[in-house]
Amino acid sequence: MHLVGAGPGGIDTLTLRALRLLTQAEVVVHDRLIDEEVLALIPAGAERIDVGKPKGASASQALINELLVSLSQRFDCVVRLKGGDPFVFGRGGEELIALRAAGVDFEVVPGVSSAFAAPALAGIPVTHRGLAGAVLVVTGHAGLDPQLDVAALTKGGVTLVVLMGIERRREIAERLIEGGVSGNTPLAVIERAYTAAERVVLASLDELAALEVNAPAVIVVGAVAALPLGELRQLADSRRD
Amino acid sequence: MHLVGAGPGGIDTLTLRALRLLTQAEVVVHDRLIDEEVLALIPAGAERIDVGKPKGASASQALINELLVSLSQRFDCVVRLKGGDPFVFGRGGEELIALRAAGVDFEVVPGVSSAFAAPALAGIPVTHRGLAGAVLVVTGHAGLDPQLDVAALTKGGVTLVVLMGIERRREIAERLIEGGVSGNTPLAVIERAYTAAERVVLASLDELAALEVNAPAVIVVGAVAALPLGELRQLADSRRD
Repeated sequence: MHLVGAGPGGIDTLTLRALRLLTQAEVVVHDRLIDEEVLALIPAGAERIDVGKPKGASASQALINELLVSLSQRFDCVVRLKGGDPFVFGRGGEELIALRAAGVDFEVVPGVSSAFAAPALAGIPVTHRGLAGAVLVVTGHAGLDPQLDVAALTKGGVTLVVLMGIERRREIAERLIEGGVSGNTPLAVIERAYTAAERVVLASLDELAALEVNAPAVIVVGAVAALPLGELRQLADSRRD
Repeated sequence: MHLVGAGPGGIDTLTLRALRLLTQAEVVVHDRLIDEEVLALIPAGAERIDVGKPKGASASQALINELLVSLSQRFDCVVRLKGGDPFVFGRGGEELIALRAAGVDFEVVPGVSSAFAAPALAGIPVTHRGLAGAVLVVTGHAGLDPQLDVAALTKGGVTLVVLMGIERRREIAERLIEGGVSGNTPLAVIERAYTAAERVVLASLDELAALEVNAPAVIVVGAVAALPLGELRQLADSRRD
């Protein structure tokens, strides 16, 4: 059994280990949003099970866990394929626990996570000497976690990356600004990174609520998000050592 | 010009885009710690420049920038190869700025970052429903950034990933405990993930200072670091929905 990250896009962002497993798979259990180019690598004779579920229908996670255990007992090469990285807001941990509880041997194959790769597509390094010494990655699918002191965590040069935050962007922006993050903070939204429909929108935090952007997308908040605008060129020049 | 992430280990963690570029490269400028298996992909006729520098010798970054600009003017396919992801504590942003200032066209090719992949190797998902709704990635090469609000880390379920923190592990542990993070917090150290020398050490935060571990390694602090011990199995069972 292999828990495999497909990366954010087509075969370019797939790892060689993922490629090898996909082309050898007897069964592939995959999510929504896996690129067609990647799915095309699955052998014609292999079974392909789409467990992609409309968001919110989390009730089926237990069924997916059971399916994975049962398939592992019947086939030698079962691939559980997830977009991005299985362990970065991918619920891979829940599947891992279920597999372990059932005594199933498994391998985790990390993928390129859109948390870092989507900003990179826009020319945004999530860390940058003197500007961002840390990066905080959160999910925004239910707004920002109320337990999380986001404003405190983003003090002092921390880049904030919000995955699945597009629908709640208004409340995410409000929460950050109320917490003390400046409305002028540079921001970027990267839609469908590494696909034919990829698109980058540059703005500032106080413009987020009104931006015309669509899921799936990654939101980056922090000084580094101004880099694509070239505003930091002089800063970088002055730092050359 | 291509700024390429090599991932944390050998060819298994390399992306297909990185593979294609490496095999077509005329010149490859690479860091220390790139796996020999990856370097072996470079064509025999291509120039191979090792700019790996002993830590602390950061003065040479400006020279690397100049080298990249100058090579780009002489060759069609120049690959700047970095371990992990070029934009996650990889100083890729500085090279990007220098290339842009010189008018050089470039592509960023994200790699699998050890920030997420090293924990995955140990069976640790950096996020996990109900346990860790966020992940903060920092560098520990100079201890923890004094600006970082460590106490805020304790308020919600935030997984802390420290890269390059082995040498300063004593002061990192002290800083976290003084900031209010419990000494009982589960912790894992993953040495040389995805290489033949990979090794996982499981402990708790108050044991970090005395652990016999060696760089390069990734430190993970948070409830999820107990997952490899199976302590969370019951918790997960109770959560099945």
